[in-house]
Amino acid sequence: MPLINPDRLLADLRCLAQFGRYETGVHRPTYSPQDMESRHWLAQRYRDIGLEATIDGIGNVYGRSRGDGRSLLIGSHAESQNYAGWLDGALGVIYGLEVARAFAEDTGCRGLWVDPVAWADEESHFISLLGSRSFIGDVGEAELDRAANNYTGQPLREALQAADLEGKARELIRPERYVGYLEAHIEQGDSLEASGKRLGVVTGIVAIWQYRITFSGVQNHAGTTRMAIRKDAGAAMVALCAAIAERFPQVAGLRSVWTTGRITLEPGAANIIPGRAEMLFQFRDEDPETLTRLEKLLHALIQEVSTRSGCPVEIEIIDQGQPARMDEAFQAALSTAAERHAPGAHVRMPSGASHDAQIIARKLRAGMLFVPSIGGISHHWTENTNDADIVLGCQVLADAAEIILRRA
Amino acid sequence: MPLINPDRLLADLRCLAQFGRYETGVHRPTYSPQDMESRHWLAQRYRDIGLEATIDGIGNVYGRSRGDGRSLLIGSHAESQNYAGWLDGALGVIYGLEVARAFAEDTGCRGLWVDPVAWADEESHFISLLGSRSFIGDVGEAELDRAANNYTGQPLREALQAADLEGKARELIRPERYVGYLEAHIEQGDSLEASGKRLGVVTGIVAIWQYRITFSGVQNHAGTTRMAIRKDAGAAMVALCAAIAERFPQVAGLRSVWTTGRITLEPGAANIIPGRAEMLFQFRDEDPETLTRLEKLLHALIQEVSTRSGCPVEIEIIDQGQPARMDEAFQAALSTAAERHAPGAHVRMPSGASHDAQIIARKLRAGMLFVPSIGGISHHWTENTNDADIVLGCQVLADAAEIILRRA
Repeated sequence: MPLINPDRLLADLRCLAQFGRYETGVHRPTYSPQDMESRHWLAQRYRDIGLEATIDGIGNVYGRSRGDGRSLLIGSHAESQNYAGWLDGALGVIYGLEVARAFAEDTGCRGLWVDPVAWADEESHFISLLGSRSFIGDVGEAELDRAANNYTGQPLREALQAADLEGKARELIRPERYVGYLEAHIEQGDSLEASGKRLGVVTGIVAIWQYRITFSGVQNHAGTTRMAIRKDAGAAMVALCAAIAERFPQVAGLRSVWTTGRITLEPGAANIIPGRAEMLFQFRDEDPETLTRLEKLLHALIQEVSTRSGCPVEIEIIDQGQPARMDEAFQAALSTAAERHAPGAHVRMPSGASHDAQIIARKLRAGMLFVPSIGGISHHWTENTNDADIVLGCQVLADAAEIILRRA
Repeated sequence: MPLINPDRLLADLRCLAQFGRYETGVHRPTYSPQDMESRHWLAQRYRDIGLEATIDGIGNVYGRSRGDGRSLLIGSHAESQNYAGWLDGALGVIYGLEVARAFAEDTGCRGLWVDPVAWADEESHFISLLGSRSFIGDVGEAELDRAANNYTGQPLREALQAADLEGKARELIRPERYVGYLEAHIEQGDSLEASGKRLGVVTGIVAIWQYRITFSGVQNHAGTTRMAIRKDAGAAMVALCAAIAERFPQVAGLRSVWTTGRITLEPGAANIIPGRAEMLFQFRDEDPETLTRLEKLLHALIQEVSTRSGCPVEIEIIDQGQPARMDEAFQAALSTAAERHAPGAHVRMPSGASHDAQIIARKLRAGMLFVPSIGGISHHWTENTNDADIVLGCQVLADAAEIILRRA
């Protein structure tokens, strides 16, 4: 059984957190100097255990085992959100490194190959899930030409140039080389903590269905226009939000979530009746039928409100992906390993957040493991997980990797 | 009876509209070159009928009759909103000029004095109702020092300097000099048009009670945070808006209006549960008791929503003025004159918009007359009124002025 080294694991996690350290978290945007330094540091760590390490043209760091058998790919993304936590992505990256080391050190694991990997820009500084999408061949050059930093506006090509990546080849997956993909991640919610569990075996990654909904009314004077004749686009939008709040719970799944993240009223003055109102709305679920049911209800509510308010509506679909199912056998391997080290303290659960695993799952069997987020906090520098949970998660991942590789 | 000259009235209105002409409207911001040119043009028009004309240190243009009796002040504001209509303010200014001319030409009106006036910056390019407030002594030098253009950021002092007004004295009202104040204005709503009336005798100018309401929630991940544990500041705000929409009509007056002009969710991203939500909310009525009743309900609804959502709330009062009652005898004079020229086609009504008359009413008896706005449109360059209604309104104002002056 491959044994991970808790001290080494925690030391490497803390070392990675030095690149772009910010308060108790990190600021390590994709292709920033601190991000690239951390990727080179990681490549060296891969080399230290005899792996062939490369950084490809999109910034993915691969540690390739020298065996001739199929390997298990294990990793996550190396960059952080801006001024955010030290574990989001980094945990899964260092787990990959530590599991590869545990396999390399265990003579009983000879012939079982683990390839650690660190993806680039899952966090969407330029393009969401960019590294994993590039790896499965889903990103053309034209998309790279168009892309710019979502915060600074810097063109992606310029950033790649500055990071010394422009012109380097982008690795493409050869699916036959791999048994599958494992990714560990902090939960980023409070489900585990709230239920007293220490491990989550991910059943699937939810799809995000996202919309821009725009009502058009008649902009007018807020003092002289009688209530009876108003066509207030903002009032229509509020009516829709209220209807969603009332009706969505009746058709949602147990784990469905929905969010209005932005509302814009135009012209946005206190004394002018809004002539235009726009909202960004999304819902998430791992069940395609639930997604379809929610969308049907959304359209019905929008039409009701549009008719009642006399404000025409436009609906733009921004995102409408499919949920990614995690492989049943991989789930079983993770559950077996979890039961071995933390009996009764693990649970099957969907992932409400996006992860590189949803991309790799299009080409390989994939599995994901969650460890608890203290207070459910993520995307903030106070994000944290107990050391004991960090260590437990890595050992469970190593055990699951062994189960999967021995059955392959 | 002082007879106005329709052709001269319309010609002068059209002449004034040449200063800053834009499409079929005007762009004549306070203290812009085109605004100052129009004020000098107006001062000359005052002089042409033997009035002593001055432009004071805040840009107000006064035409002072040379008689020794008390006079009736008649006017409105000369500047326009940005890229807006040709009648908003200008109508009342030229009415003042034309009524003064009609009195000057009518030998039967000897000893009845009319002082036309054009106020500065009612439209709040710098400070709302600035000219009339300055005239009643409500504006200190410190307020001028602090003020800047709400669109360009130019300090008011700089603008006064450029307009050649800095250093000039600001006229202060001597209430004993005046019988009262009359102002005519386009309605800026569709009440007259919708009810087939041609004249509105204003009963009072509504007060605006305006609030910034802020809910604080917990910003979190829109995918991983279960609905049950969310403290979504945006959802709380929407719940408040929905409650207002449902409950306000039950306690509002017949003419009450209420508007949510702006909603801001922070951080405003599609995939983040808003941690903070702010709205600008206002209501208007001419009845102090109705205003108090609406505010009481607003507070109750806010507390309900705050308790239910678990999101603490802050309420900032931005504006909480008192309604301005128009003088009963002035209303009667306007109604008598209206009935004389347009029997049955006039109505008493409140003003839902702010006007200089609400400021002058603090010091003098005041009255206001509305003419219809075609389609209820204002603050837009398509704003217009039928020529026949423009002419009718001016004659009615002249007749009312005579009635008032003869009784004074």
